[in-house]
Amino acid sequence: MSQNRRYTLSDLAQQLGLEWVGDGSVLLSGLATLQSASSLELSFFANPRYRQQLQNTRAGAVLVKPNFVAESPVACLISDNPYLMFAKASQLFDNRPPSKPGLHPSAYVSSTATVAASASIGANCCIEDGVSIAADVVIGAACVIGENSVIGKGSRLCANVTVYHGICIGEQVVIHSAAVIGADGFGFAPNGSEGWVKIAQLGGVSIGNRVEIGAGTTIDRGALDDTLIGDGVIIDNQVQIAHNVVIGENTAIAGCTAVAGSTTIGANCTIAGAVGIIGHLQIADKVHVTAMSLVTKSIHQAGSYSSGTAMMETGDWRKSAVRFSQLDSLSKRLRQLEKEQNK
Amino acid sequence: MSQNRRYTLSDLAQQLGLEWVGDGSVLLSGLATLQSASSLELSFFANPRYRQQLQNTRAGAVLVKPNFVAESPVACLISDNPYLMFAKASQLFDNRPPSKPGLHPSAYVSSTATVAASASIGANCCIEDGVSIAADVVIGAACVIGENSVIGKGSRLCANVTVYHGICIGEQVVIHSAAVIGADGFGFAPNGSEGWVKIAQLGGVSIGNRVEIGAGTTIDRGALDDTLIGDGVIIDNQVQIAHNVVIGENTAIAGCTAVAGSTTIGANCTIAGAVGIIGHLQIADKVHVTAMSLVTKSIHQAGSYSSGTAMMETGDWRKSAVRFSQLDSLSKRLRQLEKEQNK
Amino acid sequence: MSQNRRYTLSDLAQQLGLEWVGDGSVLLSGLATLQSASSLELSFFANPRYRQQLQNTRAGAVLVKPNFVAESPVACLISDNPYLMFAKASQLFDNRPPSKPGLHPSAYVSSTATVAASASIGANCCIEDGVSIAADVVIGAACVIGENSVIGKGSRLCANVTVYHGICIGEQVVIHSAAVIGADGFGFAPNGSEGWVKIAQLGGVSIGNRVEIGAGTTIDRGALDDTLIGDGVIIDNQVQIAHNVVIGENTAIAGCTAVAGSTTIGANCTIAGAVGIIGHLQIADKVHVTAMSLVTKSIHQAGSYSSGTAMMETGDWRKSAVRFSQLDSLSKRLRQLEKEQNK
Repeated sequence: MSQNRRYTLSDLAQQLGLEWVGDGSVLLSGLATLQSASSLELSFFANPRYRQQLQNTRAGAVLVKPNFVAESPVACLISDNPYLMFAKASQLFDNRPPSKPGLHPSAYVSSTATVAASASIGANCCIEDGVSIAADVVIGAACVIGENSVIGKGSRLCANVTVYHGICIGEQVVIHSAAVIGADGFGFAPNGSEGWVKIAQLGGVSIGNRVEIGAGTTIDRGALDDTLIGDGVIIDNQVQIAHNVVIGENTAIAGCTAVAGSTTIGANCTIAGAVGIIGHLQIADKVHVTAMSLVTKSIHQAGSYSSGTAMMETGDWRKSAVRFSQLDSLSKRLRQLEKEQNK
Repeated sequence: MSQNRRYTLSDLAQQLGLEWVGDGSVLLSGLATLQSASSLELSFFANPRYRQQLQNTRAGAVLVKPNFVAESPVACLISDNPYLMFAKASQLFDNRPPSKPGLHPSAYVSSTATVAASASIGANCCIEDGVSIAADVVIGAACVIGENSVIGKGSRLCANVTVYHGICIGEQVVIHSAAVIGADGFGFAPNGSEGWVKIAQLGGVSIGNRVEIGAGTTIDRGALDDTLIGDGVIIDNQVQIAHNVVIGENTAIAGCTAVAGSTTIGANCTIAGAVGIIGHLQIADKVHVTAMSLVTKSIHQAGSYSSGTAMMETGDWRKSAVRFSQLDSLSKRLRQLEKEQNK
Repeated sequence: MSQNRRYTLSDLAQQLGLEWVGDGSVLLSGLATLQSASSLELSFFANPRYRQQLQNTRAGAVLVKPNFVAESPVACLISDNPYLMFAKASQLFDNRPPSKPGLHPSAYVSSTATVAASASIGANCCIEDGVSIAADVVIGAACVIGENSVIGKGSRLCANVTVYHGICIGEQVVIHSAAVIGADGFGFAPNGSEGWVKIAQLGGVSIGNRVEIGAGTTIDRGALDDTLIGDGVIIDNQVQIAHNVVIGENTAIAGCTAVAGSTTIGANCTIAGAVGIIGHLQIADKVHVTAMSLVTKSIHQAGSYSSGTAMMETGDWRKSAVRFSQLDSLSKRLRQLEKEQNK
């Protein structure tokens, strides 16, 4: 790994805008959990369940709430939200190799593309005609950016990302490897015995600012209008977003979830992993869907929603599964007994 | 986006083989929904639910059935199947950037590969030994085509597609980015405490004509024989097709579905999204499987099949989920009550 | 396909360390099933269900257990574990095109990378600063290997694999196309109305020896410590392994399964396809999870586990699904009846 950055405790306090107690000259070169941190590492205490670990930590310093400072055996950075400050501190210790501005000699950049001087274009990239790449953008090795697509300021595409033509990506967006933005939506008209006739997908994809898109995630272009991803949306790996989906600001979608065409998801939702959401639905703001649920109808109220069954030993599960298939008759037999009783 | 194409209404009518009513010189430069269409756009009316939208549309012209012409406030293209004609019209308005025949200078093409003069090979492609690429094929940037694979006439691979060695792809096939055709099937023999011994996957993949394969979809090569995808099959994004699967003509498979090894799916099936189909099954023609169902046994009859539970608020769902695990005992208690009753 | 290799029966017997009966000079050029094998092919008989097929086979020779030799109409290779020997034989007939040692002229290899002379680096690869590639490694076309990553002896990356920076891959590992190793884990801290603050992912990924990783599979880097994949683990296509997951030796994971963050899976487990495993769980050794189950809590005992419901015709399923949502009330009504009865 690349050389870690180092900060004194007082430096860190200043950069995070926090008060500290203890020796401000303590040198910190990384982050670690309370249990594993060495004296060169910063840790954090956010969950009261780990109180004992706080009391026994060997960290160089620890991020804590004001009321736990007294329990810390080591220097403290004081915050009302240690987990948030841990996130901010992690960025100070980021060990990603720095990117180099300019075009790698092996990259192909069309003469009609516009690339800011501060942008970095990696090895074996392909930047097609009419593409516009703003300042401070980093395009990883082997990315392909299709005709007339636009990448906003400070965005970063990791290696092997594919962006089709006519796609609009905002500022400070991160897209991980093997993601595909703007493939055709799955639109076909049946033509009797002759099979399917493809509906050309004439829309694009519009991605807001500060969006994160995981590895292997696919976001299809719209059929007529654009597929829309709002500002601050975070999407994990291998998520499928179909054509004309709209996702509201700051919604988070965990890995392997699939959203079918023309569904609108509100703002500030949290969709867990491996969820399925069928097409043409409306999902309100602040909806939470639990892992591997299937959303089969619109959700008009904030709240938590689920489907499926709980895990069991397979032998027991088989019995329940058989009974599930008899549920309607079980229910009718119960009704019959109730009638008899009330005679 | 690239410049849209423009047609007069009478031009469109001729190209689609349709009658029209109204001003044949109306100029149309795109497609839109009844509600959003401007006077430069063609719309379509297929679903009677949107009758009011037809009556209020500001489109330049609209595709309608003969019996709705009288209700249209604007010029009409008349068809018994407006949705199908909308699909065909969409292709006339396709705004994909045109491809350029020839080899991009940055592409690597083996001296033993055969590439038709009319084919287009994009930037940074790798065409290995013995590959055969037919007329009018378009290979997007950064594709890799393995040794001795064959790509039929008029097929189009988008950027970053991987085709392994010895794969046969038919004519007029479309494959989207990050798709992988011909990776090894998941075949291993257990060797006691020494773990797994790999079974070399000696088969290939054979893909018919007019097949569409979505972004990130994987179709594995067969163990001994080929994995087979029939003519006219359409497959959405992130679908997994395991080794030795056979898929019949014109079957449609929506996103994130997984088909395990050696299963045969019939013709004209529609498999919804996120479905799982276990291995070594036979699925008849014209079977429909609803979203996120698990197919655990062969299906010998056309029809619709499902598994899972419906979505509920998580609090209510938890109660049902607990009861599910008690179903066998609930059922036995019911039986007991019935016995008592009949004493 | 490339020219098949040919062996006499006695050659094969020697290479596999087996006894044979029949004509040792029989020439074999491939493998096939009992039913389809020609006289130039080797087949195997492992499942007594196919006894009739053994008796009718036209194979050139067949792998059988000692007690079935008498039933074979053709020459036999004798083994107590014919399926295992079939796997080993398949490797002898492997028809993958051979790789060529050395750097393809179109590849970019950083001057600070170390590449063994016997390694093969394919067309349009990008090998970043400080990478170390051991002897006999094969890197397929268009792969990207990030800064300071290490690839152990004899490993093989197929085309279009992405390895981020600081990743450690063991020996004899196989990674299929479009797989992504080391993308950022999905870690964000909520910041009230300001959305999400990214937690820099400072850990790496450590992959043991003899691991196989399928096409489109993603294995994220750890937040602080590494994500760990044990020796001999086999992972199918489109599997998602989140940050800080630990997978024990020889565990097998089938396609489209998702494992959420910080979950530990034991050794010798078999996780079927499309399974979901939520985060921060402990799964014991030798656990089997059936297809499309959701694992919602830690599993401390070896055994088989399931969730979901069985497949039904959609009409019947709908009735059961409605009753599922009424299960708590059904259960209470049953309890009420029991009380009445016992009065």
